[in-house]
Amino acid sequence: MPPRRLDVVIDSVRRLLRIGATANLLNLLQKQHPADLAQVFGELAERDRLAAFSVLVERSSRLAMEALSELGPEPGAALLANRPAEEIARLMQELPSDDAAALLDYLPEELANTVIDLMRRKEGAEVESLLEYEENTAGRIMNPHVFALTEDLTVGEAISELQRARDVEMVFYLYVVDPRRHLVGVVSLRRLLLVSPETPLKRIMSADVTSARVDTDQEEVAQQVASYNLLAMPVVDHDSKLVGVITVDDVIDVIKDEATEDIYRLAGVSGDERVSTPVRSALKKRMLWLGVNLVMAFIASAVVALFREQISKVAVLAALMPIVAGMGGNAGTQTLAVVVRGLALGELTWANTWKALLKEVTMGVGNGLVIGSVAGVCAWLLFGNPWLGIILLMAMVVNMLVAGAAGTLIPLGLKALKIDPALASSIFITTFTDVFGFLTFLGLGAIFLDRLL
Amino acid sequence: MPPRRLDVVIDSVRRLLRIGATANLLNLLQKQHPADLAQVFGELAERDRLAAFSVLVERSSRLAMEALSELGPEPGAALLANRPAEEIARLMQELPSDDAAALLDYLPEELANTVIDLMRRKEGAEVESLLEYEENTAGRIMNPHVFALTEDLTVGEAISELQRARDVEMVFYLYVVDPRRHLVGVVSLRRLLLVSPETPLKRIMSADVTSARVDTDQEEVAQQVASYNLLAMPVVDHDSKLVGVITVDDVIDVIKDEATEDIYRLAGVSGDERVSTPVRSALKKRMLWLGVNLVMAFIASAVVALFREQISKVAVLAALMPIVAGMGGNAGTQTLAVVVRGLALGELTWANTWKALLKEVTMGVGNGLVIGSVAGVCAWLLFGNPWLGIILLMAMVVNMLVAGAAGTLIPLGLKALKIDPALASSIFITTFTDVFGFLTFLGLGAIFLDRLL
Repeated sequence: MPPRRLDVVIDSVRRLLRIGATANLLNLLQKQHPADLAQVFGELAERDRLAAFSVLVERSSRLAMEALSELGPEPGAALLANRPAEEIARLMQELPSDDAAALLDYLPEELANTVIDLMRRKEGAEVESLLEYEENTAGRIMNPHVFALTEDLTVGEAISELQRARDVEMVFYLYVVDPRRHLVGVVSLRRLLLVSPETPLKRIMSADVTSARVDTDQEEVAQQVASYNLLAMPVVDHDSKLVGVITVDDVIDVIKDEATEDIYRLAGVSGDERVSTPVRSALKKRMLWLGVNLVMAFIASAVVALFREQISKVAVLAALMPIVAGMGGNAGTQTLAVVVRGLALGELTWANTWKALLKEVTMGVGNGLVIGSVAGVCAWLLFGNPWLGIILLMAMVVNMLVAGAAGTLIPLGLKALKIDPALASSIFITTFTDVFGFLTFLGLGAIFLDRLL
Repeated sequence: MPPRRLDVVIDSVRRLLRIGATANLLNLLQKQHPADLAQVFGELAERDRLAAFSVLVERSSRLAMEALSELGPEPGAALLANRPAEEIARLMQELPSDDAAALLDYLPEELANTVIDLMRRKEGAEVESLLEYEENTAGRIMNPHVFALTEDLTVGEAISELQRARDVEMVFYLYVVDPRRHLVGVVSLRRLLLVSPETPLKRIMSADVTSARVDTDQEEVAQQVASYNLLAMPVVDHDSKLVGVITVDDVIDVIKDEATEDIYRLAGVSGDERVSTPVRSALKKRMLWLGVNLVMAFIASAVVALFREQISKVAVLAALMPIVAGMGGNAGTQTLAVVVRGLALGELTWANTWKALLKEVTMGVGNGLVIGSVAGVCAWLLFGNPWLGIILLMAMVVNMLVAGAAGTLIPLGLKALKIDPALASSIFITTFTDVFGFLTFLGLGAIFLDRLL
């Protein structure tokens, strides 16, 4: 990572804030692309961030809006939380309504309601209706300003309509609707250029249009946009009426956020933590996971305590037990990653579940035999007792088989219960294989204790 | 997961193959969207997949090409590997050259060279020149068929050019070049519709065009397309001449693949394994990781063995040591996930490294104090010795501090060495905290042995 241009910008922002050079600061911020502006805000310390945002709100509400829109809902809401409701309402009614809805969702409910009441009627109603859809659905992330034309228009008329509708962002497709606003077709912008102006839209539109319903899961929308290489997907309500559109840039955000969430959940971190999350709130969230895990660690510990007598006699059992537990945990983590990602990418379905389970269990036994044999021979050579090696091998085969099965079945079970399979988490699997590994290895040690003395 | 429409299709394909109903099979496959066709191929057993592909190649090379193009390079190449070079060449020269290059890259080198020699001169040369760029660069994934016009044209002339260029896929922007093909501007397709045909392109083009160089890392291209909400990014060579374009659908693939790779690497699985990877090749790849890890597990085991004498005297030490090691491993895994993802998303930079390290170490100490105190009190109550609790607390604070530091510094160190930080892997961190946790806890146990007896 060479020093970035943005690092220079951030340093200047800090300096200009310190000396109170508001005009220069505004000038500097104006020159940044909105995405870069958001990055600058994200990396400032909280005090500087609030101060810089105040300057924007007071001097250039357009810039303030762009920063909010790009920053994402949670950090954006944090910037707004302490400002007067009138000011928030003024900003919100200028924002695209999907962005405004996402931001308001992160404000305290009472404040959000006040803001909506203070907004112009039309914009307020639009935001309110978006907020009625469930989180993570197509309805929540769609843009309700969708460009649609009726099927009786000609290409020439369509082009004039398009020229009038200057405020509609990112138009790639024209959606065609019947008089009751049912979605009946789609025409690409490029197609308009290729035919004569008198052609009726009906003749060049494609009637085979993929759409999402307002309650479709956003992840499913993302998967379809990605696999069919679409630039946008229209959203219809329960009566098949066109109510919005989701563009590919929103889909990219969904894909990135879902991947982050999976990575975090697999590691036992809550999905919304970022490098920049303050210590106090991050600490609270991670501690919860570690607390859950402590209970399980004590269960593992209790299993070991059961065999205290045997360990006092053959202390080398204590030295080898972490190998069984650790290798099981690692094999389980590998399986878990493949299964959870396979589910997320739609590669793993109920139809090939048994095949996947069989594969993972076979791999557990295979890995257990090979790695266990190597470990067994090493243990024999190091501690001079062949029985120790045999017990180690047996425990490793059993534990890695169990790891493969658990790493497959736990996330699939969660999926069946409609819980995010990534919550299975490597932490959980690791403790599971700890308990099972200690039990198998020390249990075998107890059975063959005479051979080990 | 409700039974999918595709599961029905897959079952039918299997049945039609078994009874040899080639015409029906072809008819069924023709009705599928190319993306679904690829999914069907992905889920068939290897024998069925090869048989179905043979039918396609012989009866409809268009369908065969679509399947290859959507299936992705590695599985696509596996379908081709055993077919005659002439046939492969015939398919390759019809494919978009970026897809052909990606496929050929996965074929044995000798076969790939033969195929290129057998292709029509123009297409062969194009593919060859793409293959000269390094893997994972913009040059490798770009489409060399980029639609570009010279700046002296008018909008009307540009539209006629566009009407002629029917084979260029996915045009959203017109790139404007000077007579030496240097990229000088960009015009959106929509903008063309909004002005009169006599307007010179030069007047409506935006000169501020973000481009990538052929050697730019694909991940960087993806980050820019995502943060600037672009639909495509032009690619220029070392003389700033326009040589290709990367569209947003390619960017989505890059984002998904990089996320999968990170998830896998964190779990110690190689990036190209899928749910459908055959057991034998998956086993080999995962075993390598487990083997590396076995060495580290024996180091942990050797640390425990150092304290055999103390463990024989106070066997409860063996019961509690997995708690210290396990909780350290979990805390390290949490840190690692946040740091690796922060690096991938560009949120963590050298400028805020120290802040991140400080945060993680503080969190390690904080979590260690809280979780360690709870664990210490439990240990005291369970085993009736307060010193046991104090030692457990001290060891957990130290080990979680180390976990926070290692979880931050190891991936950052790898990044500095230009190695993928995700290779730090939770497996590696877990073993590291195992060794350190055993050492601290058993070391303290040895020091305070008199109090524990």
